[in-house]
Amino acid sequence: MSTSINLAVIPGDGIGQEVVAQGLKVLTAVLPQDVKLETKQYDLGAQRWHRTGETLPDAELEALKHHDAILLGAIGDPSVPSGVLERGLLLKLRFAFDHFINLRPSKLFPNTATPLAGRPEIDFVVVREGTEGPYTGNGGSLRTGTPAEVATEVSLNTAYGVERVVRDAYERANSRPRKKLTLVHKNNVLVYAGHMWKNIFDKVGQEYPEVTTDYLHVDAATIFFVTQPERFDVIVTDNLFGDILTDLAAAVTGGIGLAASGNINPTGAFPSMFEPVHGSAPDIAGTGKADPTATILSVALLLRHLGYEAQAVRIEDAVSADLAERDGTFRSTEQIGDALAARVAG
Amino acid sequence: MSTSINLAVIPGDGIGQEVVAQGLKVLTAVLPQDVKLETKQYDLGAQRWHRTGETLPDAELEALKHHDAILLGAIGDPSVPSGVLERGLLLKLRFAFDHFINLRPSKLFPNTATPLAGRPEIDFVVVREGTEGPYTGNGGSLRTGTPAEVATEVSLNTAYGVERVVRDAYERANSRPRKKLTLVHKNNVLVYAGHMWKNIFDKVGQEYPEVTTDYLHVDAATIFFVTQPERFDVIVTDNLFGDILTDLAAAVTGGIGLAASGNINPTGAFPSMFEPVHGSAPDIAGTGKADPTATILSVALLLRHLGYEAQAVRIEDAVSADLAERDGTFRSTEQIGDALAARVAG
Ligand SMILES: CC(C)[C@H](C(=O)O)[C@@H](O)C(=O)O
Ligand SMILES: CC(C)[C@H](C(=O)O)[C@@H](O)C(=O)O
Repeated sequence: MSTSINLAVIPGDGIGQEVVAQGLKVLTAVLPQDVKLETKQYDLGAQRWHRTGETLPDAELEALKHHDAILLGAIGDPSVPSGVLERGLLLKLRFAFDHFINLRPSKLFPNTATPLAGRPEIDFVVVREGTEGPYTGNGGSLRTGTPAEVATEVSLNTAYGVERVVRDAYERANSRPRKKLTLVHKNNVLVYAGHMWKNIFDKVGQEYPEVTTDYLHVDAATIFFVTQPERFDVIVTDNLFGDILTDLAAAVTGGIGLAASGNINPTGAFPSMFEPVHGSAPDIAGTGKADPTATILSVALLLRHLGYEAQAVRIEDAVSADLAERDGTFRSTEQIGDALAARVAG
Repeated sequence: MSTSINLAVIPGDGIGQEVVAQGLKVLTAVLPQDVKLETKQYDLGAQRWHRTGETLPDAELEALKHHDAILLGAIGDPSVPSGVLERGLLLKLRFAFDHFINLRPSKLFPNTATPLAGRPEIDFVVVREGTEGPYTGNGGSLRTGTPAEVATEVSLNTAYGVERVVRDAYERANSRPRKKLTLVHKNNVLVYAGHMWKNIFDKVGQEYPEVTTDYLHVDAATIFFVTQPERFDVIVTDNLFGDILTDLAAAVTGGIGLAASGNINPTGAFPSMFEPVHGSAPDIAGTGKADPTATILSVALLLRHLGYEAQAVRIEDAVSADLAERDGTFRSTEQIGDALAARVAG
């Protein structure tokens, strides 16, 4: 825990600007007075791309390295071809900074609208691999646009990459009361990657005798997410399966407006990056309808990562209390931010 | 429509035997008297593999070719290494017989237990590509089992393969009242395959001006499956995304016990194969607890494929009526089969 935080802020596109403003507001409110917070905004995203054609220039990538952490709003806009900003900016950051832990907690807070009947107890965390799998950009297309086109996508997986994320997941499971870890993959079809994941999962598990383990194919996992979400404690999975499962998890725990995430490099070699799971939602940008809670909970993950555990808990408790007490009347992005800032400061 | 049906039956593993018996019972009951039904059972699956080491010998693959259709129960058993039967038997059949349409209707029948609050109206069909994508078995592993292992999985996609499934999906959408088709992929990350899918989807769409189209990333699609499933009519998607989405679809429409599927080769060059979406469920095999409805609905798809539309509808109506009238008391696999056979014969 340092006595200063040098934070990079990438508001990005659409509602990104709005939710990040509230995240910073709550961060400022929760930090002890003697901690110096410095922030630097980076103008990256759709507007920058339209203006200059750049997604993430080397100089900015280099500058970002020198921050303690990054807070990101959302990336993506319909005016930019699909993939340009995702691959050229968001994934470029995750890969360049070796964010191999993509941490996504899912909790059904009181008084939130889950689509599930009976409001099951949900409190699990997905540890999504962040630097391998089908996300490596390894693929190509031949005879593009012709009837003879062939396109490939290569999922790359290494024992090095799998073991470190699996080990992190065991550590997390071991430190939680239920001590349960579920591996999700599809090793009956993706036999090469799937068996490697399963073997490493079993091998590392020998070092954690107190952790109960379980394996599910990804298709079966989606069933349990809606029929028995209470069965999950910690889930470890591949980059693509984690992407799919965490959106579903967000949906069943009251919506994407509450889902936080951290792109973490636990070694500290590079800054970790915290962002809401949701996208830029251009349809509601500028209307004040965006829920900043996911970003504010991402700020809690950021604080925990930097060693401010008490402050992280303060934010999480504030969100919990805020949701429990809300009465269903509409609150704007700013009103929610103000309410949470007031609670954490109190 | 022929006046005889020469059916191959692969009961397979676990509950496969039990549910297939009920499927055949209902098939026999619904067929017009003058249609001659011949069935031949194939002993394939876990027991065969344990006995002989064979999954699908060439002679049997050849023999299967000469049937009008195949009815399959379920494949897979924990005593067999994951992937052996899936790749060596089930997927081998889908690929050898070029089952490029993996058809999976999802309907929320009356009186069934959906985990979703508010019982939304659900009536959509997923047209899952069946012969390409990450399912081709193209991949490998180097330095297997060592800390230096690298494993790959290659998703192979061809314009040829994508166009034929996309075209089939447009045809289906065009023949349904709502005429809506949604493409699901992940073209902001899997840019090579994803853009090919999207371009072909847009191009073929020009021939179907009455069909409304939509595109969703797979992660977002899972959200809508639980928050707004009524928005879907026909969905077309890749092999792996289709696998994941159809299990989720089954879960929200009352469970995997009701989800039917057809592995279809519309050209007729090879027999099509019909099977429940569920697996072999070894935990309940032999207990009489398996619900044969998914298999019986798969028989309806089989009949439709062979031109027996009236009989297919008769089965679907019988299932609908049966579910509407059930009172929640336990019925065994056989009792459900008997009830449905009585209804379709009536
Ligand atoms: C925007 C996209 C590239 C990203 C992903 O697929 O990882 C998003 O869906 C997420 O989950 O953070
Ligand atoms: C058993 C498995 C190979 C299969 C698949 O992945 O296609 C199953 O999940 C299905 O959906 O039919």
